Amino acid sequence: MVENKVKIPLNIKEWLIPQDKIFFSLLEEQSRLVVQGAKLLNDLLLDYKDVAKRRKEIKEIEHKGDEVVHTIQDRLAHTFITPIDREDIDQLSSLYDDVLDFTNTIVNKLYAYRITEITREMTLFGEVILKAVTELNVAFQNMRSLNQKEIERRSVEVHFLENEADELLNKSVAELFEQKDVILIIKYKEIYEDLERLTDVCEDVSNLLRDIVLKHS
Amino acid sequence: MVENKVKIPLNIKEWLIPQDKIFFSLLEEQSRLVVQGAKLLNDLLLDYKDVAKRRKEIKEIEHKGDEVVHTIQDRLAHTFITPIDREDIDQLSSLYDDVLDFTNTIVNKLYAYRITEITREMTLFGEVILKAVTELNVAFQNMRSLNQKEIERRSVEVHFLENEADELLNKSVAELFEQKDVILIIKYKEIYEDLERLTDVCEDVSNLLRDIVLKHS
Amino acid sequence: MVENKVKIPLNIKEWLIPQDKIFFSLLEEQSRLVVQGAKLLNDLLLDYKDVAKRRKEIKEIEHKGDEVVHTIQDRLAHTFITPIDREDIDQLSSLYDDVLDFTNTIVNKLYAYRITEITREMTLFGEVILKAVTELNVAFQNMRSLNQKEIERRSVEVHFLENEADELLNKSVAELFEQKDVILIIKYKEIYEDLERLTDVCEDVSNLLRDIVLKHS
Repeated sequence: MVENKVKIPLNIKEWLIPQDKIFFSLLEEQSRLVVQGAKLLNDLLLDYKDVAKRRKEIKEIEHKGDEVVHTIQDRLAHTFITPIDREDIDQLSSLYDDVLDFTNTIVNKLYAYRITEITREMTLFGEVILKAVTELNVAFQNMRSLNQKEIERRSVEVHFLENEADELLNKSVAELFEQKDVILIIKYKEIYEDLERLTDVCEDVSNLLRDIVLKHS
Repeated sequence: MVENKVKIPLNIKEWLIPQDKIFFSLLEEQSRLVVQGAKLLNDLLLDYKDVAKRRKEIKEIEHKGDEVVHTIQDRLAHTFITPIDREDIDQLSSLYDDVLDFTNTIVNKLYAYRITEITREMTLFGEVILKAVTELNVAFQNMRSLNQKEIERRSVEVHFLENEADELLNKSVAELFEQKDVILIIKYKEIYEDLERLTDVCEDVSNLLRDIVLKHS
Repeated sequence: MVENKVKIPLNIKEWLIPQDKIFFSLLEEQSRLVVQGAKLLNDLLLDYKDVAKRRKEIKEIEHKGDEVVHTIQDRLAHTFITPIDREDIDQLSSLYDDVLDFTNTIVNKLYAYRITEITREMTLFGEVILKAVTELNVAFQNMRSLNQKEIERRSVEVHFLENEADELLNKSVAELFEQKDVILIIKYKEIYEDLERLTDVCEDVSNLLRDIVLKHS
């Protein structure tokens, strides 16, 4: 819907989808973009090359995500009936956008800080993040049906993955201090912390989604 | 109102303003203090001298801001009819106070870390912050009339300014790593990050204000 | 209730406590665990030895806290009448859990970063944290009766303690920069910042509790 620049199919789709269900479609679309971003980040951390080029690809996904968020905000301002509270949709969409923003920020830093070598820990973080975002995506695909049980289950998984990232951070930073190059310590430490914070944001999104669904069940 | 220490004019004003509108006046007052703080910070970053003295001036503004926040909380506890939900006013006022707190924190750090030289990037941050706070102030002056369109417009501007600060941060820190003095890197990096976070808080305030007005429109 | 592994007393207690009051009991239980965590942290910072062993003790408390949070979430999903909004209880419990999580994180870092010496500032932070958590605990014991005045009073105290921690952080970090060992600066700076952030979370909890009680008074 957002990737498609042709206007007509969008309008046709609107006639088919009742006004108040469009928000689920938009959030599902946003969710797919967040997954794409996490996949690109994970790929980069698994096979670290062409950073400048792949950074642009992630930037594009992030931009598409922004467009969906703005579409959601625009629709909220012009739709009188929404299936769930307007401010809840708005807040959820904004917070979910932070996941993609953060993904973009991390790749920007890898590039700007001239990181030439990826550590094993960074690769592990990439995997945990992709798993967390995949769980989130399943939760968002179950939002339309207000499937509380499934969303709760995904929320528990995201919580475990966030804990895993937390332990990974402690271990990585402790090891980092064995290093001699202080500037490298500072750069790597910040990137580790950002990778971990990305899973924090995933957990925040998952908690908010769960709370909203809890409120409507 | 808050700057004025004479109690009588305050009471007279209260008789003229209906009880439930006093919160708009107080938030507008708070907003003016936030602008004053940002101006003092910007001035300091443009013309870096007399840090000890100017730090005290900002501290004073911050203290006045605290007083307004406490007045708001006090009134909320004793007013039965408010134009918007009590918890919304409380949250908005507390979050807005973080902008002034942060302004104060940054100046404290410049002083405590014995920073003797301001970088061009810091000056640029000062400008972005003043612009963001000025947009916020316009939004707050439009809160009373629940002017959703104008508040939305300011919110978009604050979002752009936050993005600008974000890019500025990436660029500044990347350049900083070319430095040799590691302790200076640590100090400057933290101040850059605080300056950027100040714009994050501005965006949070602007989003919250927009959400509250959206809820009441 | 949570510490007790025997199932029968729990069930008996449930018959005695009306369904919708169980959440106050659970939050009070959570609160006692948060105090226990802060006491262990404070003790460790006063008498720094046996870090590996005492780290495990705090980990255990943190685990018990997690169990209470999960019990609360579980009950919320299966209880139709709650004295206050379900999402409020959920959010409050999750946020309060961050205090215990953070306590655990700090002790983990002391251990993982191989910190051998505690500074006077760290000991002072430990005291401020214990005081803040003690105030929070009093506020939570007054939640059941929705004692707005007492909760407000505790909230003001927590705010003052957070300010104290803030000033302590500025002073500690500024002094730290007089050090020569950069890696030690990085380690200590992070621990100081975490100690201060713990008081920030205490203030967030106290504000949220106050807002919830304000809403129901």
